[in-house]
Amino acid sequence: MNDTTYAPRPVIRAIGIDPGSRFTGYGIVEGDGNRLRHILNGIIRMQGQLSLPERLKIIYEQLTVIIGQSQPVCMAIEDVFFAKNVKSALKLGQARGAAILAGINSGLSIHEYSPLEIKQAAVGYGRAGKDQVTQMMQYLFGLHEGLDPNAADALAVAVCHLNMRSSKARWNLPK
Amino acid sequence: MNDTTYAPRPVIRAIGIDPGSRFTGYGIVEGDGNRLRHILNGIIRMQGQLSLPERLKIIYEQLTVIIGQSQPVCMAIEDVFFAKNVKSALKLGQARGAAILAGINSGLSIHEYSPLEIKQAAVGYGRAGKDQVTQMMQYLFGLHEGLDPNAADALAVAVCHLNMRSSKARWNLPK
Repeated sequence: MNDTTYAPRPVIRAIGIDPGSRFTGYGIVEGDGNRLRHILNGIIRMQGQLSLPERLKIIYEQLTVIIGQSQPVCMAIEDVFFAKNVKSALKLGQARGAAILAGINSGLSIHEYSPLEIKQAAVGYGRAGKDQVTQMMQYLFGLHEGLDPNAADALAVAVCHLNMRSSKARWNLPK
Repeated sequence: MNDTTYAPRPVIRAIGIDPGSRFTGYGIVEGDGNRLRHILNGIIRMQGQLSLPERLKIIYEQLTVIIGQSQPVCMAIEDVFFAKNVKSALKLGQARGAAILAGINSGLSIHEYSPLEIKQAAVGYGRAGKDQVTQMMQYLFGLHEGLDPNAADALAVAVCHLNMRSSKARWNLPK
């Protein structure tokens, strides 16, 4: 008898983040190694006239509140290597830094996944488009009312993390 | 009699930041509209093998401690528009976001200046090189022992902020 296979698997609650300086999506998913359960999703919208420090403050503070209320134990976030240009990379980097710090300062472990890993895990196809990711998240969690694409991306990275953890548990690899 | 000219000017203590994911420089300067006084400077060094979340945590936590100990009321930071490439822009953006959040969460006001404004204010010449900025900061504050170039850049942005405030006060413009 193999303990790894038959022991009850712990329920893990993860927050996935799709960071951006205008819209930051978040999605909270619970997984026990077999099933995934949708807890919450949404986006933090920032108005156009806000300064950069104001945007970072909003991302940080709102995520801190959401984490406090929904109590995930880990944060999953896309590891970005590309952006349209240097200017948008700087903006994205700052938003991403604020989101990661909200996770760190709330005591969460932080896990980064490439866009390929996320799409592969969430849709089963590494080159899936944004629409396919949204449709798959709607289908997976029975979210029939308009799911925001940024929130869908955030759910996808949480799903990716929980699936990866689950594969690692099954194969008995270090987590 | 003009109150703006003869009223004693308040002493302002500013922290300047030169953010980076390997070295983040900081410099604390006090100014009363006429004189500038060096309080502290240094760099936060991060080892090569650290993960990005670990780097952001170190920048945030060390700056929070430095701000707590030296009690500046405002943070000045370079407004970056350019980077070598998208990858370095993402890294720089994240480090910059962590530094700004340390300021925001310590209650400081945040002020951004372009590289041109900083060099113009600190060296008197907008196209000055890194060496000239370091030499000018050494001369200005009588820092004869090796001043780190990242700490010198951080002092320069603090000087820029205090000089700008001082010009605005003199000309009675809104701050």
